[in-house]
Amino acid sequence: MIQPATQATPPADRLLVRYRIETDAAHVEARAAALALEQSVEMPAGAIADAAIRATVPGRVERIASLPGASKPGGRSGESNAFEVDISLATETIGNEPGQLLNMLFGNCSLQADVRLLDARLPASLLAALPGPAFGIAGLRAACGAAHRPLSCTALKPQGMSPAALAELAGRFARAGIDVIKDDHGIAQQSVAPFEDRVPAVQRAIDAANRATGGRSIYAPNLSGGPGRLVAQLRVARDAGVGALLACPMVLGAPVFAELLRAEAGVPLVAHPALAGTAIAPALLLGRLFRAFGADATIFPNHGGRFGYSRATCESIAAAAREPLGDLRPTMPVPAGGMRVDRIDEMLAIFGTDTMLLIGGNLLEAGDGLEARAAEFATRVREAGGGAGRIQP
Amino acid sequence: MIQPATQATPPADRLLVRYRIETDAAHVEARAAALALEQSVEMPAGAIADAAIRATVPGRVERIASLPGASKPGGRSGESNAFEVDISLATETIGNEPGQLLNMLFGNCSLQADVRLLDARLPASLLAALPGPAFGIAGLRAACGAAHRPLSCTALKPQGMSPAALAELAGRFARAGIDVIKDDHGIAQQSVAPFEDRVPAVQRAIDAANRATGGRSIYAPNLSGGPGRLVAQLRVARDAGVGALLACPMVLGAPVFAELLRAEAGVPLVAHPALAGTAIAPALLLGRLFRAFGADATIFPNHGGRFGYSRATCESIAAAAREPLGDLRPTMPVPAGGMRVDRIDEMLAIFGTDTMLLIGGNLLEAGDGLEARAAEFATRVREAGGGAGRIQP
Repeated sequence: MIQPATQATPPADRLLVRYRIETDAAHVEARAAALALEQSVEMPAGAIADAAIRATVPGRVERIASLPGASKPGGRSGESNAFEVDISLATETIGNEPGQLLNMLFGNCSLQADVRLLDARLPASLLAALPGPAFGIAGLRAACGAAHRPLSCTALKPQGMSPAALAELAGRFARAGIDVIKDDHGIAQQSVAPFEDRVPAVQRAIDAANRATGGRSIYAPNLSGGPGRLVAQLRVARDAGVGALLACPMVLGAPVFAELLRAEAGVPLVAHPALAGTAIAPALLLGRLFRAFGADATIFPNHGGRFGYSRATCESIAAAAREPLGDLRPTMPVPAGGMRVDRIDEMLAIFGTDTMLLIGGNLLEAGDGLEARAAEFATRVREAGGGAGRIQP
Repeated sequence: MIQPATQATPPADRLLVRYRIETDAAHVEARAAALALEQSVEMPAGAIADAAIRATVPGRVERIASLPGASKPGGRSGESNAFEVDISLATETIGNEPGQLLNMLFGNCSLQADVRLLDARLPASLLAALPGPAFGIAGLRAACGAAHRPLSCTALKPQGMSPAALAELAGRFARAGIDVIKDDHGIAQQSVAPFEDRVPAVQRAIDAANRATGGRSIYAPNLSGGPGRLVAQLRVARDAGVGALLACPMVLGAPVFAELLRAEAGVPLVAHPALAGTAIAPALLLGRLFRAFGADATIFPNHGGRFGYSRATCESIAAAAREPLGDLRPTMPVPAGGMRVDRIDEMLAIFGTDTMLLIGGNLLEAGDGLEARAAEFATRVREAGGGAGRIQP
């Protein structure tokens, strides 16, 4: 470990942020100091006229450590290396607002290819001011009428389908007993299936299936657009009686998700990771931050599917979604992204009971066997919670 | 060039998207085909039951080309390579909505570290439906009462200052003749200087300076938060009589910027690149897309400052902001990010007359000489347009 810039533990009332910086050992201290200013006052500290501001508002480098495999401090200039750099920020600069939190954590330095955002410790005062999930894991389960067990989820796709075709497909999934039937996140406000036409049609099909089976499948349509359109969609969804809502916080904007959707949804919010990028650690963004912004469930690309997340990364997302965090309810982790029915047992063994498994394309690939495969999925997930208690992750 | 998947030129009514994929030559065709599905139907094409959807809605690989320095197609599997891949998407999947446009361009694949978004050709029907700048370069100039000349811009900073201190600083900049005085983008809704206190105070100071000098400096306060807070801030800004507004589209959400702010601002919108990341080519995101979403000016980190953009990248942003694009007004490029007064001539020589130069910390560093340095900045920029006509870029 490189000599820390300050020896004291950073005060608990400051926002502590961990970055990964690629640079050489000879330059890392200067690079860390520049990053601390970039993410706060955006000017040379010496040019700040007000002594009180100079003492508290600029970011502070709290710790610099070589990452494993990197060469030792004092190495030759020009050596390629990576360092973990902890910077503390004044919590008052956030103003308790999700967008400004993202801005302070990663606004300007997101433009710098040598910086990644690894982690952040949110002070208690900030956690208390952020909305967090309105329903959480227990509330999502209750919306599905489910006991203490994992949930099953699938997606209506592909984009381009008419409201009638989407409704027909949703009815088949509901008859099969899938807990949560969501829109594909690519289904938005297209002319072939406007929200106001497709959402009531799909909900009616699910209602009919539930009446026939005695089940409690719920529908999570995908919200899209600016605030005016979102307000109109929320009204349509409420009138139709949907059981949940899907939204992409990084597409819609985190402040819209945390302010408008969290307050007005009235049903559990499922967050989709579209546009989340690779420069912010998934456990922080999809786990802790989406949870703090109000997501009741968070979808992430599970290992071994179409995306490159490792098993450890996926477990860290699930942990961040569920671990104690101020007074915030836990968020349901939703591993997804090319999952298959033949992986149900493996996924449940990893992620445990407080998990919703999302399988989409693998059900559709069954063709005429879709309902049978969907029923197998729903049944195996439902029964996983009815055995000898909680599955150990 | 690798054998293109289709020989025909992609139809002009499809959205043509160019990606950079890191993979080896033996796998690039399969990787490109998977990307085309990921960014559209999110399922195997063979599992799409409807033939009409199967024919038009899935993304199509239109062209694959090795990037310079990469090895030739047919190279050994395992060789590390990069390829340019053109994929066309059905324009109807966008629904003419900025958030869904970002989602289709880069939603899911933003999570894949091997993919970057290089460029996109927006079809005429989509361009006609996106808002574009309400004022553009000419309107921004008119708001400052400026002739056909470059504009000067500076920032109120650091965060943490009281409304009175911000107002005092703004008055000094206005007396020096700076055209646009903007908030630092880190000044949000903090308790030390709430929007409703600081914006009227700063505007009054600028008004007083303008009356004293006969100048036309304008103020661009920074908007932040969700739609409810934004609507309240817009009202405060309007009542105070601000001449422009600053906003971070990627923090607030592109749909909020394009729908709410574009419709309700009533004054030119200056876009800030915070949270834009490095995986989307800056010319596309900060140039073409922010312009299509309604930015009248777009701030970007100029080469040779605190950020890593090359001169060529910066010139490509300026070109995308100003070049013919449907019927959209041109957007003012704003090179920034650690610029200095001693670089004015060099920057104007590169970016020309249709440019606003943003210099912040370098003015504040002058201490007691702040007004003199700010006046030098404002005067040199103003006089650059009064000479022998347009500066040639």
